[in-house]
Parts: sequence; structure tokens; C-alpha cells
Amino acid sequence: MAFLNDNYLKLRAGYLFPEIGRRVNAFCEQDPAGKARLIRCGIGDVTEPLPAAAVEALRDAAAELGHRETFRGYGPEQGYPFLRAAIAGEYRQRGLDVADDEVFVSDGSKCDCGNILDILGPQNRIGIPDPVYPVYVDTNVMAGHTGEADAHGAYAGLHYLAGDAANGFVPPPPAAGEPPLDVAYLCFPNNPTGAVATREQLAAWVAYAVEHDTLLLFDAAYEAYIQDPALPRSIYEIPRAREVAIEFRSFSKNGGFTGVRCGFTIVPRTLTARAADGSRHPLHALWNRRMSTKFNGVSYPVQRAAEALYTTAGKAQVAALIAHYMGNAAILRNAAAGAGLRVFGGENAPYIWAQTPAGTDSWTFFDRLLREQNVVITPGSGFGRAGEGWFRISAFNSRANVEEVARRLAKVL
Amino acid sequence: MAFLNDNYLKLRAGYLFPEIGRRVNAFCEQDPAGKARLIRCGIGDVTEPLPAAAVEALRDAAAELGHRETFRGYGPEQGYPFLRAAIAGEYRQRGLDVADDEVFVSDGSKCDCGNILDILGPQNRIGIPDPVYPVYVDTNVMAGHTGEADAHGAYAGLHYLAGDAANGFVPPPPAAGEPPLDVAYLCFPNNPTGAVATREQLAAWVAYAVEHDTLLLFDAAYEAYIQDPALPRSIYEIPRAREVAIEFRSFSKNGGFTGVRCGFTIVPRTLTARAADGSRHPLHALWNRRMSTKFNGVSYPVQRAAEALYTTAGKAQVAALIAHYMGNAAILRNAAAGAGLRVFGGENAPYIWAQTPAGTDSWTFFDRLLREQNVVITPGSGFGRAGEGWFRISAFNSRANVEEVARRLAKVL
Repeated sequence: MAFLNDNYLKLRAGYLFPEIGRRVNAFCEQDPAGKARLIRCGIGDVTEPLPAAAVEALRDAAAELGHRETFRGYGPEQGYPFLRAAIAGEYRQRGLDVADDEVFVSDGSKCDCGNILDILGPQNRIGIPDPVYPVYVDTNVMAGHTGEADAHGAYAGLHYLAGDAANGFVPPPPAAGEPPLDVAYLCFPNNPTGAVATREQLAAWVAYAVEHDTLLLFDAAYEAYIQDPALPRSIYEIPRAREVAIEFRSFSKNGGFTGVRCGFTIVPRTLTARAADGSRHPLHALWNRRMSTKFNGVSYPVQRAAEALYTTAGKAQVAALIAHYMGNAAILRNAAAGAGLRVFGGENAPYIWAQTPAGTDSWTFFDRLLREQNVVITPGSGFGRAGEGWFRISAFNSRANVEEVARRLAKVL
Repeated sequence: MAFLNDNYLKLRAGYLFPEIGRRVNAFCEQDPAGKARLIRCGIGDVTEPLPAAAVEALRDAAAELGHRETFRGYGPEQGYPFLRAAIAGEYRQRGLDVADDEVFVSDGSKCDCGNILDILGPQNRIGIPDPVYPVYVDTNVMAGHTGEADAHGAYAGLHYLAGDAANGFVPPPPAAGEPPLDVAYLCFPNNPTGAVATREQLAAWVAYAVEHDTLLLFDAAYEAYIQDPALPRSIYEIPRAREVAIEFRSFSKNGGFTGVRCGFTIVPRTLTARAADGSRHPLHALWNRRMSTKFNGVSYPVQRAAEALYTTAGKAQVAALIAHYMGNAAILRNAAAGAGLRVFGGENAPYIWAQTPAGTDSWTFFDRLLREQNVVITPGSGFGRAGEGWFRISAFNSRANVEEVARRLAKVL
């Protein structure tokens, strides 16, 4: 008789965004007028057109596939050399040591953040920020790295690194004397809080990782939103990070590729982990094997579109997109702060993280904003226990919508 | 200290196709004249241009993404309704009971065949055909379902279902009295042997699965190549298969999407598996959760291209591609058979499976054909112990190349 993976039965019923969808749909059925004026600032999905350079590259690549002379079948599972070179070349232009063959092109960093657990053992002590992008948690549950969830959705066996107003939502490494972490997830600019670690804060994590032989899983999907030149955009800006860190990046939020699907993961050849017998092995070889066996490369036209983002025209178009969304972020941040809320994020990230008024819990405030102002935000508690009493506003929207949301926020607060 | 997944260290060094690549590269360096006349009939990759309907759909979708009004960001992780409906609609046109929401669109059936193990438990007794598509084996090794490999590459803990000339490379279910399988992989038309199970043979497997509560993982990536209308093209043509089978399908080989990347998996809502406590749960919910959490949907333009294969024009273009490759298959099969070799496949599949002459082992014959005739085939032993003494010829090529290979085969044999 076939047995299923029992770990899936530990998963809490609602992934955050389906639950938001359920409540929004119910509201829209009850209140057609409210539905008509609904503005969604919930999910972190881009709204502006794909950069023209990417559109052209997609079209040109489609045409190539239509001719026998230029047709391409299976590409390299790791990504085409032209794209790996463009990606690594940009790291090197910033003075960072990343080789072309350390870049693994994928169909998105959500996939990679989940799939990376394939190459890690079950005995790791895993550190996860709180609040957190739910995928890190759920994929660990699925992989059997946890026990059951408690009433707040916190899973036994995971080691939560609490962010709060005091640490600016940048949790420090565990203190000396605490059992060391084997693996730790970091995400800066952060989803959901918009916090960005300073160079000193990241350096403290790298020093911790070097000391304790910890693997850092660094999610930099939002690096393009960093405005302050003093803030690190890659973990590899920190010396010795190549010994301890994998970096995940995405074209979803810089090039607007959420529907086009492309991202990449950097696995330095200098990065090793331990087998149960104590021998050390490079993770690069394991990830390469994982990708060769369970993946077949990203769609060729999509890889050409991603490559086009590195051209002069593509870079200018990406910069314009970022400027648009960061203009939105400033409006939303000012609106929330102007209404007297405590606000983080929105300065180097497309997310504003704000405290609910007068100690309202996150879902109550979500429902209130939905009903009274017909604005969808994301309740902070959906990102973990430490998010209770906070909410996230996404800057991914048109300018007109954002200005209207700013007006409505002023009314409710 | 970070621990890696020790199961990866059990994997045999060379995935088959990289080893072929290594030998071909070495040959080309030694023999530039041989390199110039090299014809590759090794890897199963398509060679003909993408159908015009798919090219147009790709281009139109790219243009859509370039305008705010028609831009799309994240799509449903399970695939867009337009494509799920087109896929399920074709099943229903053939009289098969498949609902739209039982279709999960993915970036290829290689990925799905590997990822499906995510939702299955570690305690399953797993049946794997021999010879076999290496991905089924390697993903089970990675998931920790096996012990070490023996000298022939057979892993302890897997239950091999041997194909041979006597059973026409369609292994029957285990005999009564043998410990029952919990999960069994089936692939028809078969890669690498080109064998296709008859309705009676598949019905025997479904009856076995119903009796023993076995989950059948049915890989139908090559169904479009079936010429004989009496042969089943889907496991769901067999009564009660919806209780026991998942079906994997691909656009790689019918629409030439090996570089475009799209496939799908059917998980019937009627299919359940057992938790360790004996309770039964639908696998549909688990797979849906897996895909929602670890995947973000297939590229929108790619889904539009796949949809275009279901139009009248698209169907005609796919039929022309299949006719081309099956014309190739007939030429190659006749050449091998005419030279006195024992031959399977090539009649309802794009692969010809032939016995090496005079008991030569597979790799020796591979090297000989490469050196003497500058033709690349795939050694049967690369697909498992039962493939030793056989080789696979792929019909994916131009007609001119295939005719030339037929002439060269006549010389060597």
C-alpha cells in the first residue's frame, strides 16, 4: 500500500495568500460597491509592463525557435552560458568574486529556496527569522525537519530568530552559549518587513557562520530596491561569505518577471558541508547533481529575456521600474507614518511594515481595512508570531492606486 | 555545522548523458575528420523547428506582457485555467474522465517525475523497470529510498522489474506471493526500449495496483508517437486507473518543447494514499500544496504556446512533426533489422532498441560505432543492468542524417 509523506499533514491549513484570497472573495460577494473600489496592496506582485528589452528578447527568441537553423532543444540544466556570464559578470563588476559556473539559473527563487533542502541532511539545527516568508518554514515542515505547530503556527524543532522594533527587524545571531545553528535563513531587503541589514550586521552573521560552520541561506530577491549605497546588496560583499553562504536572486521584482519566471542561485565552489561521517564535500557538486537530475533548465526565450535586463537599455528600464515602485513606497511610508503609525521598511525595499493602531491584532486590522477602506494589505501575523500586531503594505501598484491608498489610510488611522 | 544529504554520496558518478558527452568530446579532439561527419542519435532531443502556432503564441504573449493593460504577474501555481481546460478537454474528448483541476501544469515531466517523491513516504517498497529512464532511480537514491549501488549500478532497496526480449520489454506485475509493491513506475511508450504496453498488459498492472493498493506512476511523455489505435495512450483508458495512477505528460516530444519547457501531471481526486497511522488522504491535496509552496507556475508565454498546440493549426503541425520523426524511426528500424539485429521499438515510439551484434557489451559497441562510423547512440547498459548488450537509437534527427545513419549501420553490422 502506498504511503504518503506524513510531514505534509503537519502543515497548517492556510498558506497566507490563499487565506487572504478567501476573505477578499467573501467580501466582494457581500459588498459589490466595495468590490468596485477595492485596491490590492497585499501580495507582492508587480503591476507594471515587462521592460521593452525583455519583450523584444522574448519575441526574437521565439522567432529563432521557429527555424531549423536556429532551433534549440534541451539547454544546459544550469542555465545557458550567455546568461550565467551576464549574471556573474555583474557581480564581478561590483568587485565580488563569483565565477560563471557558480551561477545556477532557475525558474524562480521560491523554487530554489525550497529545493535547496534536497541537498541538506535531516539532522541540521535550523534558524528561521520571525516574521518570515512562509516558504522557508513550510518547506522545512515538508522535509520533516519539524514537529507539530503550536497555536501561533510556530513549529517545534525550528529555531526562530525574532525580529522586533528594538532590533529593527534584523535579528542578530544567537548569543554565545546558545546551541549553534547549522543552517540559518537570512533575507535582506526583508520580506515582509522591508528591513535591510547593515554591513556590520551581515558581518556579524558571517563571523558567526565561520565560527560555527553554519550554512547561511541568503535570500536577496529584493536587492535592486536598495537605495543607500552603504548597504550591502550581496552577502558576498562580506569577507569570507564564500565559505559559508548560498545566495538566492530573482528577476521577479527587478525585471517584473513574476509571470515570466527566472531567478538564480549562487553556490560558491568554496562552500562545503559535512557528511554524517564527518567528511566534508562541496555543496556545488551536490546542487549541480540535484539540478541535472530534477530540472531541465529554464525556457530558452525566458533566459534571453533575462539576459536582456543586463544590456544598457535593459538596465535603464529596470531602473525606471524600481524608481516607480520606490516612489510608491515613499508615498505609502509617509502616509502610514503621517497617520502616527510606527513604520519600518519602504526606504530600501518595496514593503512598508507598520504597527497596527492601538494594539489591534493583525487579522482584525486586515478585515477592518478591507471593509471600511476597501484596501487589501497583508496581516503581519501571517508571517509568524513576531508579526502579530503589524501589517505589510506592498508598493507594487500604479501611482494612482498608491495615492488613493494613502488618502484612505489617513482616514482609517 | 551544516550537514549535507548523505544519500547524494551514494549516486554513481556519471549520469548517462554526461558520460556520453565526455566520450564524444574526447573522440572529437582525437579525430577532427570523424568529428566533421559525426551524427548524434544519442540523446532524445528534438531537432525540428517549433510549430508555427506555438511560435506565434509565444510572440503574442510577449507583446501582451509589454502593455500595462494586458500585463500578467504571478499566475496560478497549478497552471492557467485556459491551459488546464485545453488539456483536460482533450482527455474528455477521448472519453476519459479528467477534470480541469486534476491537471497540474509544470515546467517538464522530468521535474514532476522527480518531485512526486516529495509527497510520498520513506517506507514505500518501490518497483522500477529495468532498463529505465535514469531519473526514476536517481531521485529515489537522493530521497534516501535505497542503499548503495552494486557493480552493475543496481541499488539495494529498489525492486527492479526486468524487461527482456521474452516479455517484449513490458515487465509484468510481480507474481502472487512476492511481497507487494507500494509504488511502481511505468513508462509507455518506453524510454529507452520503445516498447508499448497493450491494453491487457496495462489492465494487469491496474488490477495488481487495485489489489495491493499500489500507486502507479505512469510516464506517458511519448504518447503522441503511438500509431496503433488499439494501444492505450493514457493509463486512464483502463477502468479503475483513477483510483491508483498518476500520469505524467510532456509537450517536449510532441510539440518540440524540450527548450521551451512545459509538461503536466494528472492527479485524480479519487487517488488516495495512507499515512503511517493508517488514515487515507487524497494525494491531490498534497500535490497541490507541494506545487503551491515550492513552485510558482510556468512562464505565461510558455503556457500560451502550449495552449496553441491544441488548436486546429497546432494539432496539424504536431501531427507533421510526429510523422517526420516516425518516418525516421521506420528507416532506422529497418536498417537495424535489415542488418540482422534483433530490434524492438520504433513502431509506436521514437526509439529503436536493438541488440548489439555477437554479444558485444553496450559501451564497447558505443565506442566502436563512434570510432568507425562516427555515429553516437546510447548504450543500453546506461539504462540499467537489463539493458546490457542492447543499444538505443533515437529517431530525433533530420531525414538526411537518418538516411546517412541507416547507410552507416549497414556497414558496421
